[in-house]
Amino acid sequence: MAASAPKANAVVSQSGGPTGVINASLVGVIEEVKKHAQIKKLFGAVHAVRGIVGEQFVDLKKVSPKVLKEVAASPSSALGSSRDKPDAEYCSRILEVFKKRDIRYFFYIGGNDSANTAHIINQMAQQANYDLRAFHVPKTIDNDLLVTDHCPGFGTAAKFVACAVMGDDMDNRALPGVKIDVIMGRHAGFLTAAAALGKQRDDDGPHLVYVPEKPVSMDKFLGDVEKVYKKLGRCVIAVSEGISDVDHKTWAEKLAANAERDAHGNVQLSGTGALADFLAGQIKGKLGIKRVRADTFGYLQRSFAGLQSKVDVAEAMKCGKMAVKFAMKFQSGSVAMERNAGKEYGVTMIRTELANVAEKTKSMPNEYINAEGNGITDKFVKYALPLTGGLPRTQYLGNLPKI
Amino acid sequence: MAASAPKANAVVSQSGGPTGVINASLVGVIEEVKKHAQIKKLFGAVHAVRGIVGEQFVDLKKVSPKVLKEVAASPSSALGSSRDKPDAEYCSRILEVFKKRDIRYFFYIGGNDSANTAHIINQMAQQANYDLRAFHVPKTIDNDLLVTDHCPGFGTAAKFVACAVMGDDMDNRALPGVKIDVIMGRHAGFLTAAAALGKQRDDDGPHLVYVPEKPVSMDKFLGDVEKVYKKLGRCVIAVSEGISDVDHKTWAEKLAANAERDAHGNVQLSGTGALADFLAGQIKGKLGIKRVRADTFGYLQRSFAGLQSKVDVAEAMKCGKMAVKFAMKFQSGSVAMERNAGKEYGVTMIRTELANVAEKTKSMPNEYINAEGNGITDKFVKYALPLTGGLPRTQYLGNLPKI
Repeated sequence: MAASAPKANAVVSQSGGPTGVINASLVGVIEEVKKHAQIKKLFGAVHAVRGIVGEQFVDLKKVSPKVLKEVAASPSSALGSSRDKPDAEYCSRILEVFKKRDIRYFFYIGGNDSANTAHIINQMAQQANYDLRAFHVPKTIDNDLLVTDHCPGFGTAAKFVACAVMGDDMDNRALPGVKIDVIMGRHAGFLTAAAALGKQRDDDGPHLVYVPEKPVSMDKFLGDVEKVYKKLGRCVIAVSEGISDVDHKTWAEKLAANAERDAHGNVQLSGTGALADFLAGQIKGKLGIKRVRADTFGYLQRSFAGLQSKVDVAEAMKCGKMAVKFAMKFQSGSVAMERNAGKEYGVTMIRTELANVAEKTKSMPNEYINAEGNGITDKFVKYALPLTGGLPRTQYLGNLPKI
Repeated sequence: MAASAPKANAVVSQSGGPTGVINASLVGVIEEVKKHAQIKKLFGAVHAVRGIVGEQFVDLKKVSPKVLKEVAASPSSALGSSRDKPDAEYCSRILEVFKKRDIRYFFYIGGNDSANTAHIINQMAQQANYDLRAFHVPKTIDNDLLVTDHCPGFGTAAKFVACAVMGDDMDNRALPGVKIDVIMGRHAGFLTAAAALGKQRDDDGPHLVYVPEKPVSMDKFLGDVEKVYKKLGRCVIAVSEGISDVDHKTWAEKLAANAERDAHGNVQLSGTGALADFLAGQIKGKLGIKRVRADTFGYLQRSFAGLQSKVDVAEAMKCGKMAVKFAMKFQSGSVAMERNAGKEYGVTMIRTELANVAEKTKSMPNEYINAEGNGITDKFVKYALPLTGGLPRTQYLGNLPKI
């Protein structure tokens, strides 16, 4: 417990890649802030840390409930975002603005880089004896933050990927061949694994799932595809954009001689069809299969409008609210979710230290990946399915008895 | 009016690329057939004409109402599909099977190629004095069939594209740069134009829309992009996969030295990121803009699960039913929709001759494309918006007054 909460202004902003529910977390912060007299103004910083140092602030207490409802339902970051990774000098400029504007509450919605930024600014404030409350609200479609059972944003992206592959698998039944779907997630395979969440029938695709946690050689990959194709006459494959060869170099990096890196050192893999086309070419050329198609799902996975998971929205909003509640009692922290024991799905919101989340990433546990490294387990389905909310049902009639 | 409808069996099948509502048309046929004692058995041919000549039939009267409801909600072709384009010999084999199985009703759900197949078989039957009723039920996401105001399947695909670009535009606001979205439609720009249906604010994307009907030079394209980028600091572009240079050669064909052609002579453009990556490279290289991203929406546009347009489903189902009703009175035809006059959206189902639809395609009328050839008109929005059903609303807060 910290000393009593200061009466001062607050700032909230959103960082990194947008998700389908990061705005629900923003609305959660706004709605909860209104309940606490300790917080005077609520500044929304436009384009994250860049908006803080540039003092691009909007007055979030003035936004009407009607508009807030639509904000919560909107994909992407309603305050804009940034890929800036603040260094010490950048953080000290942020602190200067906080002092100038009497901002003593900092709510930062983002991934592990954002948790780290909050952590650095928090440490600086403490060294300067500036009474600041710094809280991180988790978001990422990659689902790769530590401590929390899962991340707001994952459920909605997982729903998109599951619905896309369900439909794609039906398409592949109608016009058989090999279909490759390249899915987001540089280091963690959760979102790629979500491709399998809509499976209803034994022979439904995806028939093969490759995650970054399990490197695979081209020979093994082609062998897997050939085996499925010989058995079913078709094959649907979900491949992570971060899939790597057995030398642990990603295939995408091998292809991208002139790969572009962002300020966090992340190679830009999305939005390019190079990996998909390369894999399709390998299958056509080396297996002699004629009808091979490949899609890269790209930005639609994180920004598609009107397809939120209801569970995800509710949790994202609650994470925002809890950050404000925690800030009334504690000096800093990151909001995390603990899954409740028992049959019915539910979570409990907890507070963890910023340092536990900052700059760290989680991988898919081994128990979620099959022994062969080309599929997922029932344990993963049990873990992830409650997060997508309901998925549509499909029917195929071509397998009925012939008359 | 034809002579009284024969008491005999019927066959129904689905051809060409799947859509989000082709199964609703199938269910419409099944439900209506059950009401007419003239039709004894209803054979579902698996994988279209291939299933007819191979006698791969399922008994569609035996499918339960519960399953039929799920069929109608499923994307893709529940009976499977085929890209076979039957020649005279193939069609005569089809007629042999019809005679053998006492099939005197032929309901074929597909595009203009399917209308042509129905037309050929119908002519053969007449020459052979075989009492056959041949009906075509329209479907295509491209919306390029003649006579009908629009095609079942288009509204659902348009909804997907509109929702995708709405979210993508919000993403581009959050992290500004240039974003290119490559959209299906080889010859007709309707689906690419649908990218603009979700626009709410004056500065919403897509800021540029390029359809196959309006060839554009690389210089003009780059000039357009530069102009928008200078004004807004960002630019979202919707480009048809069939976009062509001023020499009327498509850019995709120019890129695809080893392009693959299907049995209809169509070049396979979808599922490849080559065009998207090429355009992104041009913008990066020639305009010096750093953050350029490109996605190819691919098969998701025609097969995504759980995102049907309600209007589209209802119309697709009614087209199926009307084919059966028409077959009780007429010898052949294709079902088409006439838009009702008046403020409230509605259609009237009509019958047209197979020859009016067979092998013909419709382009976007000039009045739907702006004078510069880089955007769409309000007339298009008025035409297309009723077909998608409701679209989600979005909110952006970054443009509020700064404090």
